[in-house]
Parts: sequence; structure tokens; C-alpha cells
Amino acid sequence: MPTRSHIPRPAARRLSLYLRECESLLTQGVPTASSESLGARLGLSAAQVRRDLAYVAQAGQRGVGYDMATLVTVLQEGFGLERPWRAVLVGVGNIGRALLSYAPFRESRVAIVAAVDCDPATIGSQWGGRTVESMQSLGEVVRRGGIELGVIAVPASAAQLAADDLVAAGVRGILNFAPVQVTVPEGTACSHVDVSVELRCLAMEVALGGEHRPRRGRVGARSR
Amino acid sequence: MPTRSHIPRPAARRLSLYLRECESLLTQGVPTASSESLGARLGLSAAQVRRDLAYVAQAGQRGVGYDMATLVTVLQEGFGLERPWRAVLVGVGNIGRALLSYAPFRESRVAIVAAVDCDPATIGSQWGGRTVESMQSLGEVVRRGGIELGVIAVPASAAQLAADDLVAAGVRGILNFAPVQVTVPEGTACSHVDVSVELRCLAMEVALGGEHRPRRGRVGARSR
Repeated sequence: MPTRSHIPRPAARRLSLYLRECESLLTQGVPTASSESLGARLGLSAAQVRRDLAYVAQAGQRGVGYDMATLVTVLQEGFGLERPWRAVLVGVGNIGRALLSYAPFRESRVAIVAAVDCDPATIGSQWGGRTVESMQSLGEVVRRGGIELGVIAVPASAAQLAADDLVAAGVRGILNFAPVQVTVPEGTACSHVDVSVELRCLAMEVALGGEHRPRRGRVGARSR
Repeated sequence: MPTRSHIPRPAARRLSLYLRECESLLTQGVPTASSESLGARLGLSAAQVRRDLAYVAQAGQRGVGYDMATLVTVLQEGFGLERPWRAVLVGVGNIGRALLSYAPFRESRVAIVAAVDCDPATIGSQWGGRTVESMQSLGEVVRRGGIELGVIAVPASAAQLAADDLVAAGVRGILNFAPVQVTVPEGTACSHVDVSVELRCLAMEVALGGEHRPRRGRVGARSR
């Protein structure tokens, strides 16, 4: 019986990135990797990598590193990814259609298996093999499909309502593409993909790349 | 003259998230926030927030916290976001069209101002007010538009070529939506948005939420 320990959310997020990197290395035929090389791929220190991986695995062998195949299996199993997860998409506009058409999902253990929309013109249309159903049928869609996750791709003004409906339907985790924070009850997981933030981060990095030294100023409330 | 110091990439990424949160709080009429409350919104410790913000700002006042308006200004100026940044989109398929139609970009200081594609049927079409130009004209588009950033939304098989073309055109930062790692020369920034990874992280969080204790196994190369 393996021991268990609590994993903080930021570490869990990094573990998912290690999983992606390890899968990618395996695909490239790389059998082992050190904490240094994993860290270099993700902009993290080797010490951070070792600390994070200690949540799910024993240390890699000195001079050899972590075994990629074993690490992938342990990361998948440790986090419930040894079985498929099903998600429903709420909102079949531009972003929703792109998500439904996104081929790489077929390789993922998390798949968008259904979609709902409130626009009568969109309900009944087909995208990536899924037929869009009505927003009113969300509860039924979730029950019928054994769906545990929801993806929000509605305008900002409708995002909270979509989140409320998903929670009421029994969904346990929400990925929000709407450019606004949504509130969910404790016990429901919620992540946010904000493309504007990503582009801004990139601009920051380029600005840093030029100077590598941002200006430092006063921010404390006591400052003018 | 303010002092300057180097900022590691993970800290820079977190600073961008603080900027988003501070802007959001300002919009909600919240004038100040503590490192504790900023950290709680992002799943980070208060100590981490204080350490990160120390790169660009003096400490918040004890019992009052950081002044949001000042912090937004300092974060924007410290990272070159006091001026607009222009990006070109390569690949006007489903994801590309969603990006061009994504309204929240209008509020961002980083805007997609042009788009190129290699499909003759797509070249000349209009999306979100931009006319798609030919891939061959990328260099000219970048020069003419004073463009510094590139967004890749082509299939995985074409992503490296798109990255190479963007670098050759003089772009200094790339945001990659293709589900594959691309290699860029040193001095070029490159970020990756992987929707599959995001969904997987969410599944992990839900799995953790149920148990809060992942299984722990052996991963070292010495293990069976």
C-alpha cells in the first residue's frame, strides 16, 4: 500500500507539466532525464523539480536520473489520469468551435464529449463529431455522459451563469476561457486560460530579454 | 534613478498574473490588497508574493497592503507594457480565427494586428477586421507593421517552419498554440499554450479534491 501525502495546488500544476515533458521525451526516445534537464525545459530549478517529484516518486538515481516510462505511469496513476475524463463545452462560438475541432484532444485522457449552447441557430449543429444540445439540457447531458468537467467558452457577461449551471449539473471541475473570474463553491476546481495574459507575459519576456532588468519603483500604499 | 535587478522567468510569469489580478481588483473598486489576499487569488503563499513583488516594488504597508493603482503602473512600466505591442498571427484555421475574433484583446496592450496563412482560399479573407495576407509576405508584414511578436496557430507539423519564418522576419517573441515544442534561437522568447495540458491539470485537481492524496510510487531509474 503506497503512502499518501497532500500536494499543494501550484505543485500539482507543475506535476502536470512534468508529465507533459516526460511524455514528450518518451516520444523522442529519451529513456531517462535528470532533475536539471527537466527543470531547464520548464524554467525551474533542479531542486524545485526534485521537491515536486518527491510528492509522487522516489528520487531519481544520481548520474542516471528519473526513468521516463515509470515517471509517466506514476504521474498518471497518482492523479487519476489512468482512466479517461469527460468534459462538456458550454458556448459554441469562435473559441468553442476551435476547441471542438482541436485534434490533439484525441490523444488526451481528457476529452470534450458534448457541447451545449443557448442559441437556437447553433443547437443541432455539428462540430468535430459532436451535436450541440440546448443549454437547458445541460443537467441531462452531464448525467447521461458521466461528465465530470466543464469548459466555459461564453462571453464574459454569461460566464458566471454558465459556471453556476455547470455546478448545479454536478460538474466537479471547470476550465474557463471567458476573460473574467468566475466564482465556484468550495470543492469545485476552477482554472482559467486567459490568452491576453499569455500574450502580455510574452511581451514582458521580450522586454526583459532586451534589458533583463525591469525598473524598480515604490508600490507600498504609503508611497505617493 | 531606480535600481534594477534581474528577474527569473518563473517570477516574471507570476508578476504578469499579479498585474492581471491588480487590474481586476482596481476595476472592482478595491484600492489596496495584502500579499495574503493576492496570494490566495493565485494559489501562492504571501511570502512568495512579497518576494516576487520585491523585484519591482517596495513592500506593501503593514496592515494596509499594496496600493493597486501604483502597483499596476509599476508592473506595466517595469516590463515595457506602458506602450502597445503588436503581434502577427501565423495560421488562420479554427484557433487562429477564434484568436482574431477574441474581443478582450481590444483592452490588452498586446494586439494581433495582422495575420498570414499559406492557403490561397484563406488569403484575402477578413477576420475581426484584419485581412489575411500570404505566408510569403510575412517579412514585409512584420516590417510594415512594426511587429515584434508572433502567434503560431498552425498544425503541429508546420509549427517549427512557422517559428523559423517568424524569427527570420525579425520577431522577438512567439506564442505557440500548436501542440508541439518549437525551437527558437537564444534571444527569442517562446511560450506555449497547450489546451490539453490545461484540461489535464483540471482533471488532476478534481482527482486531488476527492482524495487530496495522490498515490506515491517509485520512479527512480533504479526501480523495476
